[in-house]
Amino acid sequence: MCPPTATETTPNGKHEMVGIENKPNGVKGLNGHAPDPQRHNPYAPRASDFLNNVSNFKIIESTLREGEQFANAFFDTKTKIAIAKALDSFGVEYLELTSPAASEQSRRDCEAICKLGLKAKILTHIRCHMDDARIAVETGVDGVDVVIGTSSFLREFSHGKDMTYITKTAIEVINFVKSKGIEVRFSTEDSFRSDLVDLLSIYQTVDKIGVNRVGIADTVGCANPRQVYDLIRTLRGVVGCDIEVHLHNDTGMAIANAYTALEAGATHIDTSVLGIGERVGITPLGGLVACMYAANPEYVKSKYNLSMLREIENLVAEAVEVNVPFSNPITGYVAFTHKAGIHAKAILNNPSTYEILKPEDFGLTRYVSIGHRLTGWNAVKSRVEQLGLELTDDEIKDATAKIKELADVRTQSMDDVDSLLRVYHSGIQSGALEVGQKEALDRLLQEHRETQRSAPVAA
Amino acid sequence: MCPPTATETTPNGKHEMVGIENKPNGVKGLNGHAPDPQRHNPYAPRASDFLNNVSNFKIIESTLREGEQFANAFFDTKTKIAIAKALDSFGVEYLELTSPAASEQSRRDCEAICKLGLKAKILTHIRCHMDDARIAVETGVDGVDVVIGTSSFLREFSHGKDMTYITKTAIEVINFVKSKGIEVRFSTEDSFRSDLVDLLSIYQTVDKIGVNRVGIADTVGCANPRQVYDLIRTLRGVVGCDIEVHLHNDTGMAIANAYTALEAGATHIDTSVLGIGERVGITPLGGLVACMYAANPEYVKSKYNLSMLREIENLVAEAVEVNVPFSNPITGYVAFTHKAGIHAKAILNNPSTYEILKPEDFGLTRYVSIGHRLTGWNAVKSRVEQLGLELTDDEIKDATAKIKELADVRTQSMDDVDSLLRVYHSGIQSGALEVGQKEALDRLLQEHRETQRSAPVAA
Repeated sequence: MCPPTATETTPNGKHEMVGIENKPNGVKGLNGHAPDPQRHNPYAPRASDFLNNVSNFKIIESTLREGEQFANAFFDTKTKIAIAKALDSFGVEYLELTSPAASEQSRRDCEAICKLGLKAKILTHIRCHMDDARIAVETGVDGVDVVIGTSSFLREFSHGKDMTYITKTAIEVINFVKSKGIEVRFSTEDSFRSDLVDLLSIYQTVDKIGVNRVGIADTVGCANPRQVYDLIRTLRGVVGCDIEVHLHNDTGMAIANAYTALEAGATHIDTSVLGIGERVGITPLGGLVACMYAANPEYVKSKYNLSMLREIENLVAEAVEVNVPFSNPITGYVAFTHKAGIHAKAILNNPSTYEILKPEDFGLTRYVSIGHRLTGWNAVKSRVEQLGLELTDDEIKDATAKIKELADVRTQSMDDVDSLLRVYHSGIQSGALEVGQKEALDRLLQEHRETQRSAPVAA
Repeated sequence: MCPPTATETTPNGKHEMVGIENKPNGVKGLNGHAPDPQRHNPYAPRASDFLNNVSNFKIIESTLREGEQFANAFFDTKTKIAIAKALDSFGVEYLELTSPAASEQSRRDCEAICKLGLKAKILTHIRCHMDDARIAVETGVDGVDVVIGTSSFLREFSHGKDMTYITKTAIEVINFVKSKGIEVRFSTEDSFRSDLVDLLSIYQTVDKIGVNRVGIADTVGCANPRQVYDLIRTLRGVVGCDIEVHLHNDTGMAIANAYTALEAGATHIDTSVLGIGERVGITPLGGLVACMYAANPEYVKSKYNLSMLREIENLVAEAVEVNVPFSNPITGYVAFTHKAGIHAKAILNNPSTYEILKPEDFGLTRYVSIGHRLTGWNAVKSRVEQLGLELTDDEIKDATAKIKELADVRTQSMDDVDSLLRVYHSGIQSGALEVGQKEALDRLLQEHRETQRSAPVAA
């Protein structure tokens, strides 16, 4: 609520850059008295955190809107309600639903979810059009997200409207929604390919008439992190209302773009579970949680029920018939598997050496893999201790050399490694084996395999 | 090869900020004569691009090193050679292989790949240790990538060495590798949690003795884009050699971090196919290509054989037994599928409206989905034209309403949509149907379904 002004309180940096000498009272003029709080410089540091909202943001969860635009998505009422309830329990601040103008069932589902009495605020997402707005406000939602394309591409090839028409319609729709006493957001579409002056002009206009949030949308997924930072920071100086960002993931940068948006002063991030949406989708909920947790674990743990993340992702993955990607942050099945010898050794000493996320905070466990040719003797030593075997460091190094030799031919399972260690241990105990006796070890392993083969199969 | 200095050629910005008046020839002093090329300010704009290497970078493809540290990876010699050849045909500038000190087979495979006569330079990755270096230089590689941990975590819980020891060993190893006439890179591990002064100090030292590249590694995946930008930009001012970055993807920001590293002056990016590596891995090759293509399509198309990307990803996915994630940039199966009505309409008018990547440049095709409740009549109109049917706009809108009604119950396949449009068209032609006659349309569709059921099944 503090629109900026370019007045005498702004340092006239441009002149300083070329070294003008006649600056009357230059420094005193800036610092001699406090600037008018109504007209302060939006770029000046704030008491708390200088624009950065990394520890002060809200999630607008759009699986039930953007996610419905995913190629495979067809959510029936029951599924929508299950997803809405799960996300609400997880703790997202907002749920965004498909426009009730899209279809009759969409309208009924919107009403049904509004009646669930969830803690999360319910939003619906509509075109910037009075027909859609009239239907939306009747559904019982807590707010309406309005969107219109402002890029030259969309103005030419989509709706064909000019900025004067867009502005006029925006004002009409916003005033109408506000008159119903609910939240309203105004967003442009394809913001990063829109004219900057057009953008700032319409955002300033809607801010003045009291919109709750303005939205920046990277509809085509073309933006990069520093570009997002610059646009949000510029916008932060133009509007006093909240700023939401909606970021597509076509080049794989949607998580990072959300992060830099928050650094620049954005307040709300759009997500969907696993990122599902048009094309490859948007900022995924789990990925956003991962990077915000890395920045401030305590804040993220206090807001969200992190151990629910995997179950929510599984729920949505099943509904849209996809697999959770193996490389998904946090919940990908390899996310906490450590393999290389030096990694495994250090992880066993102190997990913080190679882990920025604690698996236990997400209800998950880590796994140290040792039956491969990149293994190291420190990792093997840890397994020896887990098995309750007593071997010296030299003996463990000798056994490790054998594991590497076998793993060069075929990766060894944990069972294979355990058998080898047990055979090695009993050989040492019985005196049949000493460090460096390769033939003796091979003979013992061979005998062990023959015993295994002739043993009756366990029930 | 141009280490920076803080001399009189640096604009004394700090003084200008407080408006000092006695600046003798201030502006002339900067521009009146060319700065000494040996002592120029590294932060001054370069003739070409002011540090930014977004259109001037090299890929160090590490599927055969970092990728071998992926939980599921076990590459036999044949698979390694197939992957190396495919990546070489794609056009990556470097291939990085597992240390020949890791196992006997690793050493033999390294030699075998060096003998393939590929265009890509072959590197191997070793611990900063003379034992490993002696083995590496005998394999026939074009260069050696040396790494050691410098963070307090790794110094305490991994190798236990201090900075004096690390520096001494680094100098010894680098001088040894250089004496063999091949490339050498020196990298720290966990660079973003290392002491900045330690980092800059050791990089400056190895730069002075002629290392070819220094490496920054986000080993734990904790870095964010602006942090990467700042560290690389600072380092760019300290060393004259090339700068490589190796970025883990634990919070999903590895692609974006690579992008901002290039903006700050990094020259080489480590990738692996599908990002495979320790935990969730590193910057994926396909994701890097996607964001670099978005920034400069002509440059990326001129360097790399983009239509091979899908086949390389499939080769590696099969070798490590994972699925290509549905949401993978470029090759995810939904990457070029457009669904929402307004998207489909605009895409049909001009693909650039909602596509920053051209599918045809990657040997792929786009798909516009229309049989769902978010569809729009413009998208349906395009299908009507593809089917060669003649319907007025009002008739198409009427048919679209029916598609939305049916899709509210169950998503309609393209076959379903085509049947409906054909039935609608023949009804109009025969006079059995007019716009708005819902019952007549339902009856015609019912008759059509009954005919279908009684028809003999096609062979």
